[in-house]
Amino acid sequence: MTTQRKAPDAARRNETARRAILTAALDLAGEVGYARLSIEGIAARAGAGKQTIYRWWPSKGAVLFDALLMLSEGQGDQPADLPDTGDLEADLKTVLRATVDELNDPRYSEPMRALAVEILLDPALAADFAERLDEPVRELKRRRLSRAQAAGQLAADADLDVAVDLIWGPLRTRWLYREGPLTTAFADTVVETALNGLRPGASSRPTSPTPT
Amino acid sequence: MTTQRKAPDAARRNETARRAILTAALDLAGEVGYARLSIEGIAARAGAGKQTIYRWWPSKGAVLFDALLMLSEGQGDQPADLPDTGDLEADLKTVLRATVDELNDPRYSEPMRALAVEILLDPALAADFAERLDEPVRELKRRRLSRAQAAGQLAADADLDVAVDLIWGPLRTRWLYREGPLTTAFADTVVETALNGLRPGASSRPTSPTPT
Repeated sequence: MTTQRKAPDAARRNETARRAILTAALDLAGEVGYARLSIEGIAARAGAGKQTIYRWWPSKGAVLFDALLMLSEGQGDQPADLPDTGDLEADLKTVLRATVDELNDPRYSEPMRALAVEILLDPALAADFAERLDEPVRELKRRRLSRAQAAGQLAADADLDVAVDLIWGPLRTRWLYREGPLTTAFADTVVETALNGLRPGASSRPTSPTPT
Repeated sequence: MTTQRKAPDAARRNETARRAILTAALDLAGEVGYARLSIEGIAARAGAGKQTIYRWWPSKGAVLFDALLMLSEGQGDQPADLPDTGDLEADLKTVLRATVDELNDPRYSEPMRALAVEILLDPALAADFAERLDEPVRELKRRRLSRAQAAGQLAADADLDVAVDLIWGPLRTRWLYREGPLTTAFADTVVETALNGLRPGASSRPTSPTPT
């Protein structure tokens, strides 16, 4: 962030402008969709100059990407850690249900779909996305699964990257391709099936390991 | 297809032109990528007139969609059925390994990525895709899983739509977002994990039900 090197007051003003621009981008993407989102529109909504936006970001895709980073960072600097009550199944359901809520909310869903398109078209943005958002979030997921593995709740030889794909992938494809309703029941079934497997006898195994 | 209503000779000529255009679209998409693919380029490569292409298709996305349908239909009219040797795990690995080969081949992968982008941007194309390609292929997958379920190789209460998402989803997201290498080892692990689950003890269950 270039604001770090400036005087405190200028830095604070820049940060305020930056947040206004990112919020405007999110709002507009949710309202008009990505195709009709423009730098001009974002500038007007944010009360900022077009040149300010172009000075900080090369494209509307890049603005949206930072806007989504702002959302995922919440109030702090780091993405929020995944819940850990000791009950892996319950925790995963909590996380996936929250994702279902997000994906059903156009304020999140539209910018995320727009970003997905930009990533497919723009290898540089894709690399940036992988480094700054996808990989850190994936690391949080792996870390939660790794703790479950250490506690004997996941198979010792389970490939945690495959596990992440299996648990989070179905929701993502169903959303991206608009293949079906995104419901908490779907989220729950995905978690249960990923943990227990599709073979017969799965349901006879415990579905809730001892919580701590 | 409008060619059906024409005289046999004209229909044959149209079908030849149509296939030349679709093949040119696939070749070019693989060579130059989707962003630089144009109706003009397709026309030149196919030795056809631009107007002919515009008469049959509204956009380059629509051309590519029909080109991919042509590929998936193979020589016949229907998508190929999934293998059924009686050994579900082996059959699923065969299918996913073939998908890995396809997705690692730019001739297939580039047009499919391009179509994915178009589908995200164009709800009409998305509906067409769902009806003409995605849903028929999903039905084949469900049918294979349903036979396995009847044979007691899948849990009686398994949700077959979730099962399809779990088995095919991880490969699709890893490919689409370029999140990791697409290997036969990945395909195999996805199949094994989807069938056996992530919990401990999974590996002690039989991984190959009796083949017929």
